Amino acid sequence: MKVDGIPYRTIWPAADDPGVVEIIDQRHLPHRFVIERLASVNEVAIAIREMHVRGAGLIGATAGWGMYLAAREAADVAGLRAFGDQLKATRPTAVNLAWAVDRQLAVLEPIVGQQARVEAARELAMTIADEDAECCRRLGQHGLELIREIAARKGGKPVNVLTHCNAGWLAFVDHGSATGPIYAAFEAGIPIHVWVDETRPRNQGARLTAWELGQHGVPHTIIADNTGGHLMQHGLVDLVIVGADRVTYTGFAANKIGTYLKALAAADNGVPFYVALPSSTFDWTMQDGIREIPIEQRGNEEVKYMDGVTADGRIEEVLVTPPGSPAANYGFDVTPPRLITGLITERGIIRPADEKTILAAFPEKRS
Amino acid sequence: MKVDGIPYRTIWPAADDPGVVEIIDQRHLPHRFVIERLASVNEVAIAIREMHVRGAGLIGATAGWGMYLAAREAADVAGLRAFGDQLKATRPTAVNLAWAVDRQLAVLEPIVGQQARVEAARELAMTIADEDAECCRRLGQHGLELIREIAARKGGKPVNVLTHCNAGWLAFVDHGSATGPIYAAFEAGIPIHVWVDETRPRNQGARLTAWELGQHGVPHTIIADNTGGHLMQHGLVDLVIVGADRVTYTGFAANKIGTYLKALAAADNGVPFYVALPSSTFDWTMQDGIREIPIEQRGNEEVKYMDGVTADGRIEEVLVTPPGSPAANYGFDVTPPRLITGLITERGIIRPADEKTILAAFPEKRS
Repeated sequence: MKVDGIPYRTIWPAADDPGVVEIIDQRHLPHRFVIERLASVNEVAIAIREMHVRGAGLIGATAGWGMYLAAREAADVAGLRAFGDQLKATRPTAVNLAWAVDRQLAVLEPIVGQQARVEAARELAMTIADEDAECCRRLGQHGLELIREIAARKGGKPVNVLTHCNAGWLAFVDHGSATGPIYAAFEAGIPIHVWVDETRPRNQGARLTAWELGQHGVPHTIIADNTGGHLMQHGLVDLVIVGADRVTYTGFAANKIGTYLKALAAADNGVPFYVALPSSTFDWTMQDGIREIPIEQRGNEEVKYMDGVTADGRIEEVLVTPPGSPAANYGFDVTPPRLITGLITERGIIRPADEKTILAAFPEKRS
Repeated sequence: MKVDGIPYRTIWPAADDPGVVEIIDQRHLPHRFVIERLASVNEVAIAIREMHVRGAGLIGATAGWGMYLAAREAADVAGLRAFGDQLKATRPTAVNLAWAVDRQLAVLEPIVGQQARVEAARELAMTIADEDAECCRRLGQHGLELIREIAARKGGKPVNVLTHCNAGWLAFVDHGSATGPIYAAFEAGIPIHVWVDETRPRNQGARLTAWELGQHGVPHTIIADNTGGHLMQHGLVDLVIVGADRVTYTGFAANKIGTYLKALAAADNGVPFYVALPSSTFDWTMQDGIREIPIEQRGNEEVKYMDGVTADGRIEEVLVTPPGSPAANYGFDVTPPRLITGLITERGIIRPADEKTILAAFPEKRS
């Protein structure tokens, strides 16, 4: 998608140096647009661990490119495996990370000769990134049809989509999951406007989703997370699209904390509520999402402190609570399938979102 | 309630000067506890307009004390009326403000002689404040019974109450509405813990509710507004108590934006959801709260900027969104009676909250 009029991905090989991979260092958004050059496996590991990059799709792609740099650095397969372990350890719960490393190792281990491994690793890193972008593009095309139907009913008035957190192109290689249908509709000339939940406590909506929509030119408005119910009561939301961190094969969707509240409001007001996901986000083993999906508790400083830009342009962190008050920080919640109108995947829209329909769309996963 | 171990109200006549009224200047909370001395009607008007004081009950009490200072300053009834108009204009939509001014004028206008008016105004200002405190104390006692029942079922484990925004003693003269039952339970020795919604965008929960609970010694935890649904899904909330800005006689409750989302989550998880209010908060004319109650839209800078304390102790405001992104700021939402378990008032608990039960509790309002 575009930044200041120029198309970007979130990760790409540097044009001027085969030993360098470039990323958008997302820690500085929305205040500064910083491109970082990664020239070693170690630098890639830091970028993943310190969240210069984040989001399942992008973490996978970054690991893929990390293994390309590993192939350049490692004289033998043992060295390559050690680098793979180093990358996997950066964010142990990110399934796409281990998946991308293992996929590279499976291809590279049988190859004799470092130069041949480097070439194969480069090709596979590009393939992993391309597949991620293509997957989001395809789910965007399926979601576009939902938006087109609503637009036809509204006769030229903008379609109002509400989204939560950042399931945008910044979380993938391009297009994004929740934003895939939005960008597709925008490109198709459908009038669209996005309500962006600021998404406390880490503010990924206000920081990242608002930034990427703004850079691409998509009309949007940032709102406090508290606002969506009121908007839905007054007919100001036509459609909710959110991403997901994990969706069980029975249709329970774990996503950023607060998603469940929006699903309740959507159900209460007859607003369609969709979860957009590449199929790699499905969990084919868990049945009861609310009871089984572990919910990460993060540091309370994310609730107690906020950072931003001062009037004179400095980045400053401020305490916004009484210093002595405890705070809790649950990262995710789980929305049950009864509140989900459908799932938007690269294979099409699964509706309703239940065990039967999900396994019908992915018959190879029956077992 | 207590601040640093010492009992306070939010407003009181200065002990050392009959021409001075003292308030807690709430703009500085939670970072600094500042007592402000108000020595003229003009200073009272500034304190109301600039939100040194806020909350329906406290605004009414402040207007009552403002009219006492007006009686000291105005030689005749015409001057008194002009001061009354000045006070009413500070926050035109605050019904308690006009109510307190008019109540003072009704008593003072027939009185001949300035000194007699000053004495009467002082007595009535004290009465208005005392009535507000007593009203919250009584509704707190009614709400205490709800908490006592839950505590009995939990056999010594803390009762977890979730609240939104600040309907605490800082919004009234003492005790508070939503916090009335909480303080009553705490004083009664019932183990209690409060989940405090931070309440974006103005953060009244994180700033004010957390501060007042902490100062009084009530165990509490600040959470992002997104969190309540997850907590309820996992049995971590026994009871929700919120305040209200306006409750129609048909049971629709307008309260801080986001209240409706918590009511939905409570209903979905079988958690009792109560609205605590002094009966002055009832609107005896409106029928359909969602369609009729006007919802204030405030400046978008409340969404885009946050202020707090830097590491070196300065108060600083920071921009937390992309500078070019629009933001919207709706102040309130409306929760329909079907989602409200009951209303906690000074006359007792009204359950269910509908036209019939509300008018049965307030038969004098039938007309």
